[in-house]
Amino acid sequence: MATVKLLEYEDAAPAAQAVFDEIKQARNVDDVNNFWKALANHPDSLRRTWDNLRAIMQPGALDPLTKEMLYIAISIANNCDYCIHSHTASAKAKGMTEAQYAELLAVVGMAHQTNAQATALKVPVDDQFWIE
Amino acid sequence: MATVKLLEYEDAAPAAQAVFDEIKQARNVDDVNNFWKALANHPDSLRRTWDNLRAIMQPGALDPLTKEMLYIAISIANNCDYCIHSHTASAKAKGMTEAQYAELLAVVGMAHQTNAQATALKVPVDDQFWIE
Amino acid sequence: MATVKLLEYEDAAPAAQAVFDEIKQARNVDDVNNFWKALANHPDSLRRTWDNLRAIMQPGALDPLTKEMLYIAISIANNCDYCIHSHTASAKAKGMTEAQYAELLAVVGMAHQTNAQATALKVPVDDQFWIE
Amino acid sequence: MATVKLLEYEDAAPAAQAVFDEIKQARNVDDVNNFWKALANHPDSLRRTWDNLRAIMQPGALDPLTKEMLYIAISIANNCDYCIHSHTASAKAKGMTEAQYAELLAVVGMAHQTNAQATALKVPVDDQFWIE
Amino acid sequence: MATVKLLEYEDAAPAAQAVFDEIKQARNVDDVNNFWKALANHPDSLRRTWDNLRAIMQPGALDPLTKEMLYIAISIANNCDYCIHSHTASAKAKGMTEAQYAELLAVVGMAHQTNAQATALKVPVDDQFWIE
Amino acid sequence: MATVKLLEYEDAAPAAQAVFDEIKQARNVDDVNNFWKALANHPDSLRRTWDNLRAIMQPGALDPLTKEMLYIAISIANNCDYCIHSHTASAKAKGMTEAQYAELLAVVGMAHQTNAQATALKVPVDDQFWIE
Repeated sequence: MATVKLLEYEDAAPAAQAVFDEIKQARNVDDVNNFWKALANHPDSLRRTWDNLRAIMQPGALDPLTKEMLYIAISIANNCDYCIHSHTASAKAKGMTEAQYAELLAVVGMAHQTNAQATALKVPVDDQFWIE
Repeated sequence: MATVKLLEYEDAAPAAQAVFDEIKQARNVDDVNNFWKALANHPDSLRRTWDNLRAIMQPGALDPLTKEMLYIAISIANNCDYCIHSHTASAKAKGMTEAQYAELLAVVGMAHQTNAQATALKVPVDDQFWIE
Repeated sequence: MATVKLLEYEDAAPAAQAVFDEIKQARNVDDVNNFWKALANHPDSLRRTWDNLRAIMQPGALDPLTKEMLYIAISIANNCDYCIHSHTASAKAKGMTEAQYAELLAVVGMAHQTNAQATALKVPVDDQFWIE
Repeated sequence: MATVKLLEYEDAAPAAQAVFDEIKQARNVDDVNNFWKALANHPDSLRRTWDNLRAIMQPGALDPLTKEMLYIAISIANNCDYCIHSHTASAKAKGMTEAQYAELLAVVGMAHQTNAQATALKVPVDDQFWIE
Repeated sequence: MATVKLLEYEDAAPAAQAVFDEIKQARNVDDVNNFWKALANHPDSLRRTWDNLRAIMQPGALDPLTKEMLYIAISIANNCDYCIHSHTASAKAKGMTEAQYAELLAVVGMAHQTNAQATALKVPVDDQFWIE
Repeated sequence: MATVKLLEYEDAAPAAQAVFDEIKQARNVDDVNNFWKALANHPDSLRRTWDNLRAIMQPGALDPLTKEMLYIAISIANNCDYCIHSHTASAKAKGMTEAQYAELLAVVGMAHQTNAQATALKVPVDDQFWIE
């Protein structure tokens, strides 16, 4: 189904295996998800993607659940099947309640509607929104 | 610039004026933003949009700032100029710090990248992500 | 502002001038719009685009106004500034009323919302929707 | 497959059952579609979505079939699998002929092409398109 | 699964069969892909699409593989499942190596990220980028 | 106009200045583009973006001009104004001819059209496109 083979650990290049090891340790899991097995065909991309993702998703000024929810929002807007599934599962694992999920989806749906309205009407930006 | 005239209070229909009054009271402002002045050409849409937005954006399982940040994320993904400006300004008014904004943008950018990668590779959804 | 020069009739190649002549005659106007002046830098593209557009937008099973409104809907979804302006103007010239425009925008906004909801929830297609 | 369980009538909350009843009556059907069964997990969203949809899709300045065709157009542009299937089926049920469907798709395809061209060339909006 | 029947040669109209014959000859294949069998329900669209595609994809200032890779890039950005699969297969048939494919995907992913960043920050275009 | 101030060298943090220095040296220019001045508000993002971009855009299995053209294609599909301008300028600086640019745009436009058609018709992927 994928456009590349999903590489299991034993079939991956050493550079990819090293990233697999880091992911398994960081997430305390026995195996990595299909996304990483697909990226393993391109070890440089696998390394860059993991390094960037780990740095960006770590706790900071925003907590990890908020970051996951933002990730879900973008994945919906981009209509990425895999990403919607994986980040929704991940947010639930990080404690997203059904009530939070319901409100997240309500905001996402509403935003799509008003985005379309503002775009359709070509509403000019109010003066007070500009950075002086 | 807009595809409709921006209607000031005195030029709007009574049904639109009533919504303007509610917005001004709810937000404690003297005038409504251009988005509402554009929608005022279609009082039914103005009423529906305001009622839905007020209900969805009120404090609930998610706090108002988190909702604003989700709104920004969708507005970026949809490339809605007006919405990016208005919701970024609104999030800052609700206390979004520069550090939070930086992390929000980093997550949004990263999500766009991995969304494209997963879509390009047509990665199959892992079994454990399915709702049984 | 454009990434190419907008070519006036006298600066265009003969193959582009021929298309300009056809557009002016078909639409009974003195000059062509900027879209055509930009495309005139690539006469083959200009020719193909005009031939296809003329064939597709002619009256058929759907009347020209319905086709214009569909064009507006797609242009909003794709966030094409130029296209939103030109096709909204064109629909008005073909008789679109303010009430029709209001309903068009309401449907477009609503569709964006439910599209996002169905995508987010990954709703499986009902059996009865399949073509057997 | 969905990110939530599809709730049958007997498993839904009373507030959701009330919406199911209204949908079944309005559409004269024995059961609601999967979209509503998914939304039933969030009764407030179910209520808002149904109320808005019913109001917006009722006959008005635009006839119901034209509204359905606009809905299809947006669903294609947003690449919403479920929505493409459900609204194409719905439009056929409302009398869309194969010839109308063929022209709808031709307009949608052409609009995507010229949207991309105008966006790529950054064509400036013609003066006559502005609302004075 | 499709919204129309996939028409085999013997079920297609003569005008569609003529296009099938051209495709089979041009590509030296025994049968056409599903895309063409779906379009065959609308012979005018089939004819227009094939004529345009053949003209645009022929060798010119850009070689056929570069054109295929651009087609993949757009198909990813538009999230078109069918198109991602068909054009990735086609590019491989035209000689795209695994290393080229890896770099193509890296550029596509990076572009999605910086597109989102520039859009989010509303970065003004530098003076030197304008066409004078 | 931007949602952040564009930071000149003297106003940027040392970590941002270091990136500015690398960009100026790598590109042999006196000043960096606005994109980098906007990102300089978030030095971590600036660093990550520059490091990734430099690694991905260097000559490899694909030549730099092909990479630039792919970048343009994605920027058009994502409708990123800034990116369309900057990467079109960059491709021209790397030798993209008018004829190549015309063909690039033709492919991009055609891809948008057939993407929409395949998506609308929900064409099932042909068996021969699957990776075994």
